Amino acid sequence: MIRVSADELRRFCLDLLIGCAVRTDVATDVAEGLVQASLRGVDSHGVRLLPHYLQAVKGGRLNPNPTYRFDRTASATGLLDGDHTFGHAAGMEAARRAVALAREAGTGFVAVYNSSHFGAAAYFALEIARHDMIGIASTSTDALIKTYAGTRPFVGNNPICLAAPCRGEDPFCLDMATSVMTFNKIRQLRDAGLPAPAGVGADRDGRETTDPDTISMLLPIGGYKGYGLSLMVEILCSLLSGMPYGPHIPKMFEAPLGQKRCLGHWIGAIRIDAFQPVETFKARLAEMLQELRAEPRGDPETPIQVPGDPEKREAEQRSRHGIPLTPAEYEGLRSLRDAYGVRTDLMEQTDAVVR
Amino acid sequence: MIRVSADELRRFCLDLLIGCAVRTDVATDVAEGLVQASLRGVDSHGVRLLPHYLQAVKGGRLNPNPTYRFDRTASATGLLDGDHTFGHAAGMEAARRAVALAREAGTGFVAVYNSSHFGAAAYFALEIARHDMIGIASTSTDALIKTYAGTRPFVGNNPICLAAPCRGEDPFCLDMATSVMTFNKIRQLRDAGLPAPAGVGADRDGRETTDPDTISMLLPIGGYKGYGLSLMVEILCSLLSGMPYGPHIPKMFEAPLGQKRCLGHWIGAIRIDAFQPVETFKARLAEMLQELRAEPRGDPETPIQVPGDPEKREAEQRSRHGIPLTPAEYEGLRSLRDAYGVRTDLMEQTDAVVR
Repeated sequence: MIRVSADELRRFCLDLLIGCAVRTDVATDVAEGLVQASLRGVDSHGVRLLPHYLQAVKGGRLNPNPTYRFDRTASATGLLDGDHTFGHAAGMEAARRAVALAREAGTGFVAVYNSSHFGAAAYFALEIARHDMIGIASTSTDALIKTYAGTRPFVGNNPICLAAPCRGEDPFCLDMATSVMTFNKIRQLRDAGLPAPAGVGADRDGRETTDPDTISMLLPIGGYKGYGLSLMVEILCSLLSGMPYGPHIPKMFEAPLGQKRCLGHWIGAIRIDAFQPVETFKARLAEMLQELRAEPRGDPETPIQVPGDPEKREAEQRSRHGIPLTPAEYEGLRSLRDAYGVRTDLMEQTDAVVR
Repeated sequence: MIRVSADELRRFCLDLLIGCAVRTDVATDVAEGLVQASLRGVDSHGVRLLPHYLQAVKGGRLNPNPTYRFDRTASATGLLDGDHTFGHAAGMEAARRAVALAREAGTGFVAVYNSSHFGAAAYFALEIARHDMIGIASTSTDALIKTYAGTRPFVGNNPICLAAPCRGEDPFCLDMATSVMTFNKIRQLRDAGLPAPAGVGADRDGRETTDPDTISMLLPIGGYKGYGLSLMVEILCSLLSGMPYGPHIPKMFEAPLGQKRCLGHWIGAIRIDAFQPVETFKARLAEMLQELRAEPRGDPETPIQVPGDPEKREAEQRSRHGIPLTPAEYEGLRSLRDAYGVRTDLMEQTDAVVR
């Protein structure tokens, strides 16, 4: 593994994005979103997506120079036109708007339309939590979850994310999709030649299978429950934003790179002090999480964790020792310099300590 | 099975509640909530709970004559003191407040404190959806979900509920708890002498078991995911309301009936027309649900349903043919007349057609 510091990776992403004519404010939001995901160990949504995004800019799917339009429709609500830019940037613009609305109205909810893939939902919820608010973020995604009692996917593997500020540690952060297992994990099993567990995927005819090579759709958590949660997110993200839903959403990798994805997001901010004194809330949340972590363990070697704990631990490690990249990933990123004719480089972290 | 009409059952509940000195507005909200749950086939949260609630009034847990106190803390937010009355009534008061806030601010969110069991979350979300708003309702519940990697329950089997108005049919309504199976279903398996499926429950030492007699805690959907969802609800319902969380919440049936439960609820209203024209939204939601129901079926005999479909079908049937009660349930309800000295009776629906 090659290790690269977060600062170095951020600068490199920024150089490339700006070199590809992405406006500086947009590039900044995207670079930060990608590096934050990589730093937190959410590699599926991290810097490895940069090559795809640059192709999508070149192909015309992503608008590098968007004109945002924000309509404040009531004191606590608004609609944001993302003008088909990166979801990271449109989502972050919405998060800022939601925070501003909540400052005045107690809560702020923004539906984003004409957007694209926004990376990890936690990026927006954590930004909102920095302001002593509860952050909420969801997005529509293309059809991937097997319909309950059906044979095909209809709803997406839509994320549900909530972050809440906490005393003495980074915010609580739940960021989960509605499938039992991610498609990335299925791909890893394919590469490793290992079977998938029962109950995670189905083949193209909708029959459950443990053969990762034939899994083409994912099974939701709790059967009809996870499918219902996906549909709830579809209502908030696709219908409140006026965007297409489920099977009508162009697929991220399969659709032509000139095609807009027309994703919708739902971003919310809830001001803590509209309900409880901020310090009381943060102290009680810390107390609840500590109490939970101290519960008796099923296996003495396996710590009890709360949502976000694995990401916090990973971020702490990677901040110190760098973000790990395979040689192929590292060279793939470096080769973008030549592909797009940008004068930059990506340096290894020389003092990186491999765990 | 004995069948009783919804109107008759509502009148009977109202007579008993008022006969037990429950204030008329409170009794009306409770009777309607109980009968709506029974009508929609959610029997676990329906009229069969009336004997328990009356005992809780007599025992001093439930305040039959509450003084609500509502603090509007910002244009879109408020806190409601339920004064330890029935959760049905405090929750409905919060739903009305949330709707009023949303009329002005686009959204309205109310945290309820000093409340008690509120029955089915759908009651409040559906009330809000009648006003062309998306309704959201959750509540804290006592510890019942096995902690992921732990051996005991800490978080509750907290419901997540969202209702949205839809053209040409009753609102979409997702109302789900975070466990794979309800405890009521476990009790039914006990009574029937049947084993539980794998992956739904654990014994008092936290070991998974299929013996319904030894199941003492429930497993969450998707392992750590359902556990994370419960924790999310705990933050919204227990911490934003300033109420106790998880293991500190007195249990519904086990705690003395003089003990207040101190539950918290989170009730929200999102005005559709703050985001999209109402008719467009409702038409698109209807279209999406119809498209989903017309998806190819895995088994030709099993229709594809969306959240709330089973309850809609049941409500339609029970509206016509009455709400079914076992002879024991029927006599149990009738015997409350004597127990509390209330002059009333519960008449069978004479034209009830047993399916």
